[in-house]
Amino acid sequence: MVFKEGDLVILVDPKGSYFLQRLTPGKRFHTHKGYIDHDQIIGAPAGTVVKSSLGREFLVFYPSTKDYTLNMPRKSGIIYPKDVAIILVWADIFPGARVLCGGVGSGALLIAILRQVGPTGRVVAYDVREDMLAWAEQNVKNFLGELSGLELKLGDIYEPIPEKDFDRVLLDVPEPWRALDTVEAALLPGGIFSAYVPSIVQVDQLIKAMEERESFALIESLEVLVRHWQVEGKSVRPYHRMVGHTGFLVFARKVVRSSEENC
Amino acid sequence: MVFKEGDLVILVDPKGSYFLQRLTPGKRFHTHKGYIDHDQIIGAPAGTVVKSSLGREFLVFYPSTKDYTLNMPRKSGIIYPKDVAIILVWADIFPGARVLCGGVGSGALLIAILRQVGPTGRVVAYDVREDMLAWAEQNVKNFLGELSGLELKLGDIYEPIPEKDFDRVLLDVPEPWRALDTVEAALLPGGIFSAYVPSIVQVDQLIKAMEERESFALIESLEVLVRHWQVEGKSVRPYHRMVGHTGFLVFARKVVRSSEENC
Amino acid sequence: MVFKEGDLVILVDPKGSYFLQRLTPGKRFHTHKGYIDHDQIIGAPAGTVVKSSLGREFLVFYPSTKDYTLNMPRKSGIIYPKDVAIILVWADIFPGARVLCGGVGSGALLIAILRQVGPTGRVVAYDVREDMLAWAEQNVKNFLGELSGLELKLGDIYEPIPEKDFDRVLLDVPEPWRALDTVEAALLPGGIFSAYVPSIVQVDQLIKAMEERESFALIESLEVLVRHWQVEGKSVRPYHRMVGHTGFLVFARKVVRSSEENC
Amino acid sequence: MVFKEGDLVILVDPKGSYFLQRLTPGKRFHTHKGYIDHDQIIGAPAGTVVKSSLGREFLVFYPSTKDYTLNMPRKSGIIYPKDVAIILVWADIFPGARVLCGGVGSGALLIAILRQVGPTGRVVAYDVREDMLAWAEQNVKNFLGELSGLELKLGDIYEPIPEKDFDRVLLDVPEPWRALDTVEAALLPGGIFSAYVPSIVQVDQLIKAMEERESFALIESLEVLVRHWQVEGKSVRPYHRMVGHTGFLVFARKVVRSSEENC
Repeated sequence: MVFKEGDLVILVDPKGSYFLQRLTPGKRFHTHKGYIDHDQIIGAPAGTVVKSSLGREFLVFYPSTKDYTLNMPRKSGIIYPKDVAIILVWADIFPGARVLCGGVGSGALLIAILRQVGPTGRVVAYDVREDMLAWAEQNVKNFLGELSGLELKLGDIYEPIPEKDFDRVLLDVPEPWRALDTVEAALLPGGIFSAYVPSIVQVDQLIKAMEERESFALIESLEVLVRHWQVEGKSVRPYHRMVGHTGFLVFARKVVRSSEENC
Repeated sequence: MVFKEGDLVILVDPKGSYFLQRLTPGKRFHTHKGYIDHDQIIGAPAGTVVKSSLGREFLVFYPSTKDYTLNMPRKSGIIYPKDVAIILVWADIFPGARVLCGGVGSGALLIAILRQVGPTGRVVAYDVREDMLAWAEQNVKNFLGELSGLELKLGDIYEPIPEKDFDRVLLDVPEPWRALDTVEAALLPGGIFSAYVPSIVQVDQLIKAMEERESFALIESLEVLVRHWQVEGKSVRPYHRMVGHTGFLVFARKVVRSSEENC
Repeated sequence: MVFKEGDLVILVDPKGSYFLQRLTPGKRFHTHKGYIDHDQIIGAPAGTVVKSSLGREFLVFYPSTKDYTLNMPRKSGIIYPKDVAIILVWADIFPGARVLCGGVGSGALLIAILRQVGPTGRVVAYDVREDMLAWAEQNVKNFLGELSGLELKLGDIYEPIPEKDFDRVLLDVPEPWRALDTVEAALLPGGIFSAYVPSIVQVDQLIKAMEERESFALIESLEVLVRHWQVEGKSVRPYHRMVGHTGFLVFARKVVRSSEENC
Repeated sequence: MVFKEGDLVILVDPKGSYFLQRLTPGKRFHTHKGYIDHDQIIGAPAGTVVKSSLGREFLVFYPSTKDYTLNMPRKSGIIYPKDVAIILVWADIFPGARVLCGGVGSGALLIAILRQVGPTGRVVAYDVREDMLAWAEQNVKNFLGELSGLELKLGDIYEPIPEKDFDRVLLDVPEPWRALDTVEAALLPGGIFSAYVPSIVQVDQLIKAMEERESFALIESLEVLVRHWQVEGKSVRPYHRMVGHTGFLVFARKVVRSSEENC
């Protein structure tokens, strides 16, 4: 497999900085460490080393979802790959799933979900800001190309919406407790709800609002820490600096407590 | 959507214990908290509450991948969902990917990968123990049903194998550095390698062996911590006990340093 | 240095369990792993191995403050050594300091403070429960012997108390914000205030109450995690289980904002 | 209590930067945020607010040991207060203790120990570098004034030294396993040994060297994490960045296994 015109690639410089590029014949990529002609990359194996005009080595790869979302243009904070990863597994996003999202951010979670639900899945994402929707759409398109399974809608997830029968509802909004009516209405019995919440006070408020309802079970709240290790010669130790916090994650299942079932 | 005969479901008792059951008309599930007839569940909404003969409430759901792997029969330790989640994202397992696995364990990682690569993907998994392969196969089948994209092979990943052109190679073996020839041969340029490693001494040994080769780039080692929070009344705090360690994760990209490319 | 009659010692059995004993000639210490006569210990070096009647080896030491507080009789939870350690340093408990404590618990923090302030220091500790005061006093006496620098008082730290001119005020009470008038009145300018707080909601409430006042500066809140490592043969890794949470710590300095000073 | 001439004080600017100053009549402290005359501070309460010439508020306090060591001039990395705190408690540094130190660094641990052992204690500290000894001595003197209980010695702790009968031995040297003969010879039975070790590979090597000897028991290795919380309005969460690693700590007790004891 070789790189070809139109591919989205990632270049990694000798210091570990990442740069996204869409391969275009004749185009030149300029950095402080010299320039690289896209034509040096087109036709090379899809995982290679190219030299800049100043003789510095750049790695070139197809970006992973993580590479892409960490390096795509952002208009807001993103949900970090560590949190995306846990959401995908804890909320059990599966091929073919119908997923409702409240709050699109820059599209990082959206991209991961779209990839996971695959061509048979369906994702409906709401946001109150038109510019954020456009931005997220651009980021999604740039990485995944088409958008057949995705519907982006301008609207307020705190208010009633027509969507029903979703397998999963994922929120990244400031006051997720205000969306609980919507969540309840949109989610199938047994469906999984997930919220990304920056502050523990909001977690508290959300969980207490959920507990006042009959329809949520197996409520779980957690945070994810990834600790990178430096392994260089005799120095084998965690890095001195780490990300201490991004957000808290809340999960729950929708349950139907129909008194008729057990008569 | 309602539960039907033949479905695999999970029952959660009032203390939070999980029980897997295959719904069978006429079958009765016995616990210390009374029995439940499968016929109470068949026909109920797919996310419901049933009462045992002693009047205790059990939640009934379709198991998520996480629910299933944490509760399936095990013959060995499993790779925990938190680590599976990070592997899926860091190793960028994508729909249609060809993935080579060394070491099957009880099948937890296998199940997650199979679900992610989908019907167009291909997974080849090696193990030196026939009983482990059979066990893993049983666990996979029980959850995912068919196995079209999966090939389980008895063999030693430390030795040469015929597999080539894989997008991803994932190892869960005691001495992953001994498999590096295999990894190099099986992986496409730009492909991602991942190893699950219990001890930091092995991480050190693996990374040093990788650095002696020219073919690995962007080597990264990390550990994942998930911290659960208790949110009950005024008590909002992390749980007193947590999982302090499961394993370390190592990731890298295969790179081709062909001097011809850049002439 | 050898063990002598009347010494408080700690015995550690082959499984790592700790047992406090006051050495008494003729006394016999019984365990599931056989008995040990105190006379075996009296006269032995102050850090030795003795064999039980069943031939099992027990280590014998003088207990450290940590050994003692973790193994003394308790009537309530204790502040763990990791948190005591950080309080001692962050609250800067120094030889000769005058320290006011609200809430005595089982005396763990009290013992550490008394040892640190030394013979020239003074510690006044309040509690609303007479039984807790008696219990703490017993635990302190048993380890440190005399009590010259300590005054235990039955009373409510939420209410006005006569104490003034303290260098440090340390609280371990359910609603520390209710004690802020007392803290302000008792603390010297530049003095350090510390509170041990189990729940983050209380931390929030305490800090907000402090910020409404003019008299607290450099407010800091934190939690302390100690992660133990297993180093056995090739297994070099954190233990699988760890303490995920004990309590949060809040610190601040008292400051006088007298407009007159800077005219 | 008021500030007086000759006092060492700490000024904290509106952004939280710390500045050590020795109060001198007529002296002026210059910052980007205006100047402050020492005479504004002399005579003010020992915990106050002064205004710079540009009207910015500076807090003024007597530095705690932590404030001082984090802000004193350094020639090398320091052992951070969190690790100092745990060493003081785990190694049970007590008033009157005789403590042997190998490696002085910039004096941070030395200062904490000297304060803890008090006027009846004794600290002997070795270092192979004369400049480090002079630097550490200067830092100690500047904070604690006199040095009656401290003896700084130029010498190699890996080689035999005359010191005997120490209660505690604390190492901060690159290859602590090379000092084990010295540690054994210097430590009393029951004495506590502690080492500060940056890399886990060294921890492994140290512990394995200790286990080959008969004289160490209750060997423990750990790391300390302090996580600060931001509590501002609705934002109640850990800070986004944290210190992920400083060093590992190893502790053990010296034990005498005299066969004669138990005959």
